[in-house]
Amino acid sequence: MEGLRDDIREVYSAAIEAVNPRGAVLEHLRLQAGKLLVRSRGSTIREFDLDAFGRIFVLGAGKATALMARAVEELLGDRISAGLISVKYGYTTSLARIETIEAAHPVPDEKGRRAAERILDMATGAGAGDLIISLISGGGSALLPLPAPPVTLEEKRQTTNLLLKSGASIHEMNAVRKHLSLIKGGNLARAARPATVINLMISDVVGDDPDVIASGPLVPDASTFAEALSILERYGIADSVPASVLDRLRDGVKGLLPENPKVGEECFSGGTGIVIASNILALEAARSRAKSLGYTPVVLSSLIEGDTREAAMFHAAIAREMVASGNPVSAPACLISGGETTVEVRGKGLGGRNMEFALQSAILLDGTRGICVASVGTDGTDGPTDAAGAFADGRTVRRAMAIGLDAGKYASENDSYHFFERLGDLIVTGPTNTNVMDVRIIMVREKGSAQDI
Amino acid sequence: MEGLRDDIREVYSAAIEAVNPRGAVLEHLRLQAGKLLVRSRGSTIREFDLDAFGRIFVLGAGKATALMARAVEELLGDRISAGLISVKYGYTTSLARIETIEAAHPVPDEKGRRAAERILDMATGAGAGDLIISLISGGGSALLPLPAPPVTLEEKRQTTNLLLKSGASIHEMNAVRKHLSLIKGGNLARAARPATVINLMISDVVGDDPDVIASGPLVPDASTFAEALSILERYGIADSVPASVLDRLRDGVKGLLPENPKVGEECFSGGTGIVIASNILALEAARSRAKSLGYTPVVLSSLIEGDTREAAMFHAAIAREMVASGNPVSAPACLISGGETTVEVRGKGLGGRNMEFALQSAILLDGTRGICVASVGTDGTDGPTDAAGAFADGRTVRRAMAIGLDAGKYASENDSYHFFERLGDLIVTGPTNTNVMDVRIIMVREKGSAQDI
Repeated sequence: MEGLRDDIREVYSAAIEAVNPRGAVLEHLRLQAGKLLVRSRGSTIREFDLDAFGRIFVLGAGKATALMARAVEELLGDRISAGLISVKYGYTTSLARIETIEAAHPVPDEKGRRAAERILDMATGAGAGDLIISLISGGGSALLPLPAPPVTLEEKRQTTNLLLKSGASIHEMNAVRKHLSLIKGGNLARAARPATVINLMISDVVGDDPDVIASGPLVPDASTFAEALSILERYGIADSVPASVLDRLRDGVKGLLPENPKVGEECFSGGTGIVIASNILALEAARSRAKSLGYTPVVLSSLIEGDTREAAMFHAAIAREMVASGNPVSAPACLISGGETTVEVRGKGLGGRNMEFALQSAILLDGTRGICVASVGTDGTDGPTDAAGAFADGRTVRRAMAIGLDAGKYASENDSYHFFERLGDLIVTGPTNTNVMDVRIIMVREKGSAQDI
Repeated sequence: MEGLRDDIREVYSAAIEAVNPRGAVLEHLRLQAGKLLVRSRGSTIREFDLDAFGRIFVLGAGKATALMARAVEELLGDRISAGLISVKYGYTTSLARIETIEAAHPVPDEKGRRAAERILDMATGAGAGDLIISLISGGGSALLPLPAPPVTLEEKRQTTNLLLKSGASIHEMNAVRKHLSLIKGGNLARAARPATVINLMISDVVGDDPDVIASGPLVPDASTFAEALSILERYGIADSVPASVLDRLRDGVKGLLPENPKVGEECFSGGTGIVIASNILALEAARSRAKSLGYTPVVLSSLIEGDTREAAMFHAAIAREMVASGNPVSAPACLISGGETTVEVRGKGLGGRNMEFALQSAILLDGTRGICVASVGTDGTDGPTDAAGAFADGRTVRRAMAIGLDAGKYASENDSYHFFERLGDLIVTGPTNTNVMDVRIIMVREKGSAQDI
């Protein structure tokens, strides 16, 4: 299966390359005859006359933001008046004009709060003739914590923890948090008014909803104080959250505080926002590469969630159908999907979503031939390991058996890392400095009725 | 969404029509100038000179078998020397030359055993110059029970129950049962030798493996007595099964009994076997109809198993992707899949796999537009109800709310039947007299960025 693996490597590398933060900025932002062009899928969608602006500020937060900032410096150089970004400890790069603050992720710290305060100040200080380029990527929410006084960072953390335990959905949790922040839920956009804002986002969330990416500091918030309060009540934690939190939400419901900015509000006019890297863009790059390698590509969906084993079953069912009947397309073909599945951890082993997917696929496809599977985290890190994912095919379980490894046992112990490490089937990319969730590539070499090795 | 629903109705009707037992026999068996042609996907794959045969026997078992027999009578009329089929109580039709025995399903009874005995006798009595046309369909296993003495029907039932509770897979269960039968696992083929056998099968199992359909009475059995015994041991029930069962398996291991016939054994030469109706054939008929209605069809897989809600999530993810980015194909498009999912029943409501799929889809797709889902049991019966399935779309949950129905509550009570009954969204086809599991049709009318109603 080495030929298939080589092809798969090319395909997932193309996917990861397409969402490289620097490349994504330079693909979506171009300088041409004094104009700054904002592009989408190869076409210019907005044009800004750079000479019309006084100062240009660059601000942002997220794990991929340093590399995004670097690209903006390459593009605009000393045209940048000032800049400030908040990134995770260690996620830095060398920047000439944009200041970097390193802060804690995923649990925010005081350095992050201070960064958020200064970024808010910078946005507030920008005037009618100024341009703000905002760089938002995954992790940006934890790296831009600015609780609305008197709510403290610690009280906001407590509230988040209560929501996490309550069973509230991520959307419900965000609706509450956006009403405890001076920066999230569009509040940074309101502060930036009347400056023009170009908001560039790298999406690490299923569906690429801009108001979910880093809790949407520059995006309209459809939720209200009343909804935030009713969520606390619905999950029975209104009496457990800190008094300052409850007071703020109640004040908001009484109309004593302004609601977060809504669609159509003036602070969102003039500028533009665009997702410059996302799972579907990675998948589409994979599709192009697979096609150029001679495979018929099928991008199933970038929105795959749910249980990892069930996801493996679904993909295996499609791959097997392809072998059996040539549906949905005839082999040689390449199934491509993305998103982020979950693993119900039962064992004490080492692994991640992608290696789990590969291990379950190996079990499901045992004995088939001509099918090769890879699942890869685009950030280069699958679970708490140094691998990004793993390969699996119809011989994986047998090869494991031959060296004394029981695939079923490793699966029940969630020990996919050690399973694939022993087989030499780990996919190691190293950190990629970006994150658009996971990419799964399934290559089917040929149609054939004999499925057994 | 009425236009979409009308189109979906046409598509699933085409799927069900394609696996009609009578039509499937007449599609795959043709009489031409004294030759009996066996056809597959429109081409003749085998030819038998009818004049070369002495007697023609028709035998078989299964819920769809009476209609298959009728087609054979239409084709061969008084050329049929004798025939005997075993069908579920009430699953009969008027036949001129082929005798029908009605028996119990899914738990076999004495009438089924007697039918099996007589069918075995008929096969044994056929000689070198005779032709046997065998008609096998879902339910055929329970309708052809012939335990190898001294194992009794009751002892075989006990063994099956122990296996069911043990966690053994369906393949493991079949491996044991095939070694307790005089007819399953190829034993009927051995009895039929040296007659020529044309074995026509309607598959109600995922993957259409002929040795699984009705436990493969006329198909090679890859499993052995030793494997059957080791399965009982692995699941710790070797000491619990009746002594006669254990004795038989041990005698087999000692070589005192012949192993079931294997691939290449003479009893499988001369004749032919073909699956004349199956889930994938239904899906391919759906594909043709969808295409003729102007939709780009995508047959995902006929092999979809696993949890019904997870399956609904995958299908919704693909439909949403189609709306968002035009992947895997651009709308208007029709996603088609089949197989058989499972429902973990938690509530006390009334429903089936297909209505559950529709209810979960309604929840997942709430607020979308231009997407319409239908899931239909090809036998016309979803769970213990008079409906075959249901429709769902982005307005279903809201329409339900407007008449006081909480979709989430009905879902948690597994009460999909009453939910869709109140909405008038049940799909009722009436009994179809065939069964190739389920068909799911998801139509996406147009690509568009606005997903909210």
